[in-house]
Amino acid sequence: MLEDLKKKVYDANLELVASKLVIYTFGNVSAIDREKGLICIKPSGVDYEKMRVSDMVLVDMEGRTVEGDLRPSSDTKTHLALYKGFSEIGAVAHTHSRYATAWAQAKKPIPCLGTTHADYFYGQVPCTRVIPDTKIEKDYELETGNLIIEAFEGIDYRRIKAVLVACHGPFTWGRDADEAVFVSSILESIAHTAIYSMMLDPKAENIKKTLLDRHYLRKHGSGAYYGQENNC
Amino acid sequence: MLEDLKKKVYDANLELVASKLVIYTFGNVSAIDREKGLICIKPSGVDYEKMRVSDMVLVDMEGRTVEGDLRPSSDTKTHLALYKGFSEIGAVAHTHSRYATAWAQAKKPIPCLGTTHADYFYGQVPCTRVIPDTKIEKDYELETGNLIIEAFEGIDYRRIKAVLVACHGPFTWGRDADEAVFVSSILESIAHTAIYSMMLDPKAENIKKTLLDRHYLRKHGSGAYYGQENNC
Amino acid sequence: MLEDLKKKVYDANLELVASKLVIYTFGNVSAIDREKGLICIKPSGVDYEKMRVSDMVLVDMEGRTVEGDLRPSSDTKTHLALYKGFSEIGAVAHTHSRYATAWAQAKKPIPCLGTTHADYFYGQVPCTRVIPDTKIEKDYELETGNLIIEAFEGIDYRRIKAVLVACHGPFTWGRDADEAVFVSSILESIAHTAIYSMMLDPKAENIKKTLLDRHYLRKHGSGAYYGQENNC
Amino acid sequence: MLEDLKKKVYDANLELVASKLVIYTFGNVSAIDREKGLICIKPSGVDYEKMRVSDMVLVDMEGRTVEGDLRPSSDTKTHLALYKGFSEIGAVAHTHSRYATAWAQAKKPIPCLGTTHADYFYGQVPCTRVIPDTKIEKDYELETGNLIIEAFEGIDYRRIKAVLVACHGPFTWGRDADEAVFVSSILESIAHTAIYSMMLDPKAENIKKTLLDRHYLRKHGSGAYYGQENNC
Repeated sequence: MLEDLKKKVYDANLELVASKLVIYTFGNVSAIDREKGLICIKPSGVDYEKMRVSDMVLVDMEGRTVEGDLRPSSDTKTHLALYKGFSEIGAVAHTHSRYATAWAQAKKPIPCLGTTHADYFYGQVPCTRVIPDTKIEKDYELETGNLIIEAFEGIDYRRIKAVLVACHGPFTWGRDADEAVFVSSILESIAHTAIYSMMLDPKAENIKKTLLDRHYLRKHGSGAYYGQENNC
Repeated sequence: MLEDLKKKVYDANLELVASKLVIYTFGNVSAIDREKGLICIKPSGVDYEKMRVSDMVLVDMEGRTVEGDLRPSSDTKTHLALYKGFSEIGAVAHTHSRYATAWAQAKKPIPCLGTTHADYFYGQVPCTRVIPDTKIEKDYELETGNLIIEAFEGIDYRRIKAVLVACHGPFTWGRDADEAVFVSSILESIAHTAIYSMMLDPKAENIKKTLLDRHYLRKHGSGAYYGQENNC
Repeated sequence: MLEDLKKKVYDANLELVASKLVIYTFGNVSAIDREKGLICIKPSGVDYEKMRVSDMVLVDMEGRTVEGDLRPSSDTKTHLALYKGFSEIGAVAHTHSRYATAWAQAKKPIPCLGTTHADYFYGQVPCTRVIPDTKIEKDYELETGNLIIEAFEGIDYRRIKAVLVACHGPFTWGRDADEAVFVSSILESIAHTAIYSMMLDPKAENIKKTLLDRHYLRKHGSGAYYGQENNC
Repeated sequence: MLEDLKKKVYDANLELVASKLVIYTFGNVSAIDREKGLICIKPSGVDYEKMRVSDMVLVDMEGRTVEGDLRPSSDTKTHLALYKGFSEIGAVAHTHSRYATAWAQAKKPIPCLGTTHADYFYGQVPCTRVIPDTKIEKDYELETGNLIIEAFEGIDYRRIKAVLVACHGPFTWGRDADEAVFVSSILESIAHTAIYSMMLDPKAENIKKTLLDRHYLRKHGSGAYYGQENNC
């Protein structure tokens, strides 16, 4: 089933390695077929080098394996929560990329310090609160996803396609697996640059709204004039 | 038209990638034929991998496309302002290279902390003021260029071929596209080193004028004795 | 003798180079055959490029060479102390990888700031005390090993397979040479990330016990549900 | 003349590039034939890619070109001063490698924070004072060399084969061109690690003499027991 989706998810997972966002078995990418209600995700703890397209696992919206011989990623329920909470996304990526994770471990959002950030994220990248013990004990991975949804109260997930889970690392999303990985890569780049800006000016803050608007909106939405077509 | 110039601009854009100064569609290089009053520039938002020589766009001094099927870079008007304000330059490069951008996001000029810097830039690399809202609303990219010109009041753009646009990133220039990219690369190198010097000594300042003169002038101008010929 | 072990130790030493954990002749990996009471270790000061499988040295538990034409690693006695003190380990690796060494030189344990750390180490990675002069004069390399054992009083070496030797660098271990090198690589990754977290929040501290438990125990031990089989 | 020496100097210069210690035309390596009183050095400002063995320049002890069509490195007189001041060295290397240069720009010696440093340098790596104006005006490159000699008053240049020139960058030396480049590479590695140690502990200081002695002397001198033969 869903051979095309499996291939795309497989390729996107390997792109995490090629983009130096993961090592060993770190990280995972999934994508959803909303019509069928099925999610295709990387198997848990499998080396990227040995992984094959047919190792991709299909699960339903409750996380039950529908197809595949291997256990799905241990983060599967976090992905599920995102698909449920963010109704328009088509894919989710998770990495422990070093600079984004450094911010997550510092429990701080990444402020929007410049136009590179503003080109891709419409404001600072939120950081969840630290997961409470009750949620750790209950259903840890699902509750991690719920914390992310909570962190987006009042924030449009279609315009900021990334989050930092406090004490953990980044999750990103997009219309498809390629975009989810692309956002992970951009996120790492702006996380890196922002750390050095903070070193040079520990009081650095979000750029003003007018500049944020100009950059984000020249690339996204109906008035966009960056690129060769309007980007969503 | 201007096939040679297109090839040079195309090559210089790819050199940005090879020098690890840009990823994805970031950055752009242009060059001018001052006699014809035409500028050749990278198309907007095109992947470097897919870009062909024939995708280079020719625009006139008002930014109107004269040749080319694609939209020119969204930063075209910034380039135009530089060609108008700096009458002797032949090319402009723009990147979001991480360390130079870190300085731009901290809204700080890069001090001239050593002879590597002094070999290439005759003093600290200026940072523009933050663009005012009126300029953002008016003609954002053109006004960005005008801010750069303003930042060079009293500074010789032929001796400091780089600027940081506050909250944005670096622009560099030179006699041709190769030099503009070369300066971007040198700038990134000295931006990186300077950050670490500032960590070791947060009060580090510009080196003294005598040392700056010695290094800059042994490489540039009529008394130069570095290299195999006098450099301009 | 022990040709298989020699090959594994040889490969693991080269993996240190491939993983960019060592340069030149830095670092060393050994493995033990507990039944025979023999340790196979890299020769001292030999370039990785020129090293052959047959250069691996076999020593007994007192460090006396049993087979091999070359001197064993100058750190051999540190390895011996670890094999004696940590009765279940099968291999030891030592590097001067930059970020882990930065922590060792700062004489600080690496706090467990996030789940990447918690996935592999059950708590902060300890740092020994600075070796006293009497121990330097007595039997330096052996006493270095003894300091490591001392640093693990009250800590389970099977759940934290790494240590920082103050003013020196990291040692790691595992069931075999591959795992020892793997842990060195993971350690370097979390050491790097943790430095940047500390820059962003100099007061960052160990994550809470509930989160540590959840991550470490989902990958290790009888209740593990990460990966395709239970990990030890 | 001296074809062997030219080849060695040529190879060592290219090794600077391979070790990522220089970019473009940065840096230079020379070696001396003390019997003939001749120094072989890289030509000034020539791209490493285009450089040929026959481009190496031979100069006498006063810096006069004896053989070669190109101008010698603009730093030639600094090399000469070192050959005169340090009578046993056979080669000199100069780079602007980023982390060593960061220390030089901060005008600080690199403290010996750990055993990696102690393995190769018998104490902190000195930093010269800032060159006085009178010396800049007189004979800049020669006086730079003299400042280095001055910085080694009371320090054995055979046991610390590197220096930082304040506001400039590192010079290293050795018995031959290979060793001079090797020391540049080690220096960059310990400079990098030391910066991060200082971030984690801004008050970090030189390790104690007993530990320094143990590490340096186990690799160097008559009592050495590291490696397969005694190192000088």
